Amino acid sequence: MTDDLIEQIAQVIEKIPGLPAASRVDRAHTPSSLPSADQLASFIDHTQLKPEATPAQIEQLCAEARQYGFASACVNPSYVSLCVRLLAGSNIAVCTVAGFPLGATTTAAKVFETRQAIEQGTREVDMVIAIGRLKATDHAYVYDDIAQVVAVCHAGRAICKVIIETALLTDAEKIAACMLAARAKADFVKTSTGFAGGGATPEDVALMRRVVGPALGVKAAGGIRNRAAAQAMIAAGATRIGASAGIAIVSEGQERSSTNAEASPDGY
Amino acid sequence: MTDDLIEQIAQVIEKIPGLPAASRVDRAHTPSSLPSADQLASFIDHTQLKPEATPAQIEQLCAEARQYGFASACVNPSYVSLCVRLLAGSNIAVCTVAGFPLGATTTAAKVFETRQAIEQGTREVDMVIAIGRLKATDHAYVYDDIAQVVAVCHAGRAICKVIIETALLTDAEKIAACMLAARAKADFVKTSTGFAGGGATPEDVALMRRVVGPALGVKAAGGIRNRAAAQAMIAAGATRIGASAGIAIVSEGQERSSTNAEASPDGY
Repeated sequence: MTDDLIEQIAQVIEKIPGLPAASRVDRAHTPSSLPSADQLASFIDHTQLKPEATPAQIEQLCAEARQYGFASACVNPSYVSLCVRLLAGSNIAVCTVAGFPLGATTTAAKVFETRQAIEQGTREVDMVIAIGRLKATDHAYVYDDIAQVVAVCHAGRAICKVIIETALLTDAEKIAACMLAARAKADFVKTSTGFAGGGATPEDVALMRRVVGPALGVKAAGGIRNRAAAQAMIAAGATRIGASAGIAIVSEGQERSSTNAEASPDGY
Repeated sequence: MTDDLIEQIAQVIEKIPGLPAASRVDRAHTPSSLPSADQLASFIDHTQLKPEATPAQIEQLCAEARQYGFASACVNPSYVSLCVRLLAGSNIAVCTVAGFPLGATTTAAKVFETRQAIEQGTREVDMVIAIGRLKATDHAYVYDDIAQVVAVCHAGRAICKVIIETALLTDAEKIAACMLAARAKADFVKTSTGFAGGGATPEDVALMRRVVGPALGVKAAGGIRNRAAAQAMIAAGATRIGASAGIAIVSEGQERSSTNAEASPDGY
């Protein structure tokens, strides 16, 4: 039934004028063996996106990212410069967000934010789609909004993750959003901002993986607070985890106090 | 005791290099007589900022703004052009937001959003302060962030409301934020985005009014869902109300179904 819905949406997307040709997508997902605790760190975007986060908290985040070897430190745009300085000489990427968390800024503003962040040294940009336009099935708008941000990312050798905000979408909308992101050459689709009252679920991750196939990354984010939750996402097809509880996720079993459920009241 | 705290923060603000001279502030607030239902509409920014709002919902918002004579229709930046078209020839302002709702984009991005919105016809911009920098007492950053947006607004004959996000602040931080907004020549201070888990309270409105005196407007927003709540804010010193429940607020007593508490799950 899911595949019927995917096929049905694919035919809708196909009719949008001006889209590049679709690649053939292999929808079978073979979960790879679950990563060890050491490997797990390289799956995690160590994340601090709270509006009240101070420079001191960003310094701590970056120190932790170095210590544990996370994939990136993910911060709001106003802290990109600080993060780039703090992570210089490391392999940790600086990740930031665009049009975050509502996705309701103009495409030009998303492009501006993305370009500035890349100029400042960001290597990964997580952008939020135009959710209201998706709900209105204005797929051409949603596609163009994504494609413009992706183009700026790729021109600047950054990768682009496309946040579809699953908590606000029907399954048909989730499928359409993933297809539009893939057609727009995004590098990842991502479940959630963590600010919409709902986060990642294994079911959504599996659906997104099924739609995009193995060619794109899938990032699960929002409410992932322990190792079991992170592993469930990876088993469902996630290749990146966004979390403020990264230390708890990788340290679990190695020390006593392992959960950090209070770390982020907004659910990230 | 509040006045002692205000005086103490004023001395801190006074030491920031490069600020324009402070105006003398008359802190006594004499509440004007409460507006009638007809007058009340002109206090209200009729607001639809949900990320999933569709163009059809924006069309409805603008039609309602015309029908009831609200001060403005307040929408996310991606809908400014649509709103300007829908409200052409009316006295209803188009209001939008910048750096919304986290306040954690760069100053340059807030300026870009503001300039684009004004070019598209916005007459009012509600910008969010750099909350994390305020918490780190980097007052110079917070001032400059506000001042740059205000300058673009005034150059474009738009007014600027400065959202301080009271739910995340201590009283000392609320006072500092209001003083910095006033020194940066903002037109209004505003309590809340509606996205931070807490909205306007009469106590916060009274404090903000006490700090800025009669020269600035005070906008109460977040969780104001009926006439009594709106009137309590105005009695405390508010001169503008941001609400998605504007129709309920002005219609109460005139018709049976008067509350609209479900209108906005995010608390706006």
